[in-house]
Amino acid sequence: MKTITSLSNPLIKAWKKLDTKKGRREAKEFLIEGEHLIEEALKSGCVKHILLLEGLHHPFCAKEQAIQVSQKVLDELSSTNSKAQMMAVCSIVEQHVQTRNKVVLLDGVQDPGNLGTIVRTAVSFGYDQVILSKECVDLYNEKVVRSTQGALFAISVITRDLVEEIHALKQEGFFVYGTSLHEAVFLKDRKKTQRCALVLGNEGAGVSEQVLEECNQNLMIEMDQFESLNVAVAAGIAMYTLRYE
Amino acid sequence: MKTITSLSNPLIKAWKKLDTKKGRREAKEFLIEGEHLIEEALKSGCVKHILLLEGLHHPFCAKEQAIQVSQKVLDELSSTNSKAQMMAVCSIVEQHVQTRNKVVLLDGVQDPGNLGTIVRTAVSFGYDQVILSKECVDLYNEKVVRSTQGALFAISVITRDLVEEIHALKQEGFFVYGTSLHEAVFLKDRKKTQRCALVLGNEGAGVSEQVLEECNQNLMIEMDQFESLNVAVAAGIAMYTLRYE
Repeated sequence: MKTITSLSNPLIKAWKKLDTKKGRREAKEFLIEGEHLIEEALKSGCVKHILLLEGLHHPFCAKEQAIQVSQKVLDELSSTNSKAQMMAVCSIVEQHVQTRNKVVLLDGVQDPGNLGTIVRTAVSFGYDQVILSKECVDLYNEKVVRSTQGALFAISVITRDLVEEIHALKQEGFFVYGTSLHEAVFLKDRKKTQRCALVLGNEGAGVSEQVLEECNQNLMIEMDQFESLNVAVAAGIAMYTLRYE
Repeated sequence: MKTITSLSNPLIKAWKKLDTKKGRREAKEFLIEGEHLIEEALKSGCVKHILLLEGLHHPFCAKEQAIQVSQKVLDELSSTNSKAQMMAVCSIVEQHVQTRNKVVLLDGVQDPGNLGTIVRTAVSFGYDQVILSKECVDLYNEKVVRSTQGALFAISVITRDLVEEIHALKQEGFFVYGTSLHEAVFLKDRKKTQRCALVLGNEGAGVSEQVLEECNQNLMIEMDQFESLNVAVAAGIAMYTLRYE
């Protein structure tokens, strides 16, 4: 097994750049941390290198991608304060879908925990794709990846212009639901459809006007008090209802 | 208006101790930050002092609780990196309810964002009370308070032994739903009841066995893939379904 202990090793310098969105986009790579995420990434075939703390005994040591590294190297690359024992360098690959029947579109979701949680929910409920606007937080941000709990490796997540994408979806026969607190019907009163897309918006501003204009129907979730819901909770309720009701 | 600019002022030293759970419990006080939270706290009548950056023009300056403080003082007390302009010292008061018809019980929820989000959802859906086990993260933790977006001032949140509380609820005529991935019925197939309590559990371990044993029926959320859901998302879906279906 190859060993790297120096921070001045060119590979470490290159991987250190993966802590910014720009660095990740240029290298088409991102870093993940921890056994569970690495296992999920291995299943999807996108793992280029597994960095294991020197002296660690673990089945991953037998993998061809394994590299032994010092604690100093892991500390340099890790974004958490905890002492990482294993990390991996993964390729950014846009997964495609053959046919899609249920998709979620996100217009400017900014909080990493919210984006990660919505991707995780999408996988649990059998959605085929998550489509992000360019204004969303980067999918490969370490907090987003952690919040997905590995679900990002199990679903197609693409970044597109949402207006163009909604046009394409409607041509494919999709019914597209927007979400809004104004001029919307309650979730229970929606026009029921099998092949549908759901659009959720930014934490503060919601779905942008120009995107709402393209939707077939705007939904709002029933509420007793006119408080807004957290967007990951609203997404969960709407995705569940569209899928199982 | 009173002015404090020195970090050695005894009030500042006392308020600095509110950054730990122990300090908050001893003083029966907690700190909040930002205009929206202070407005919500004022409505509930629990605000003891409002700390405003010197030179700031704001309607709060006219309040009897207003104290002018230096940026240094705000930086000392604030838990965020952003330059706070206003904070408040609030009393910890356990709100009680006259009658309760829908309650949520949380068994060891540890993530501050999850607890705050569940309290926020409970208010939106008209639940009467949130009951926490002693193992839950502290409600007055600054991250919890921020995630509630002020909802903690609008609902009764109490800490109790959950086994004892479930006994009391059943005597009041409540039907108590546990949540579990084993020996549970799907949410759609539950016994439907008006007066009900819902128990959600820890992010990793779920609801403890001894609490599940006291529940009338265990629920699980329908899923396509056997992934678990984030607890705040699961809570949102179950609370919505019990309230509006």
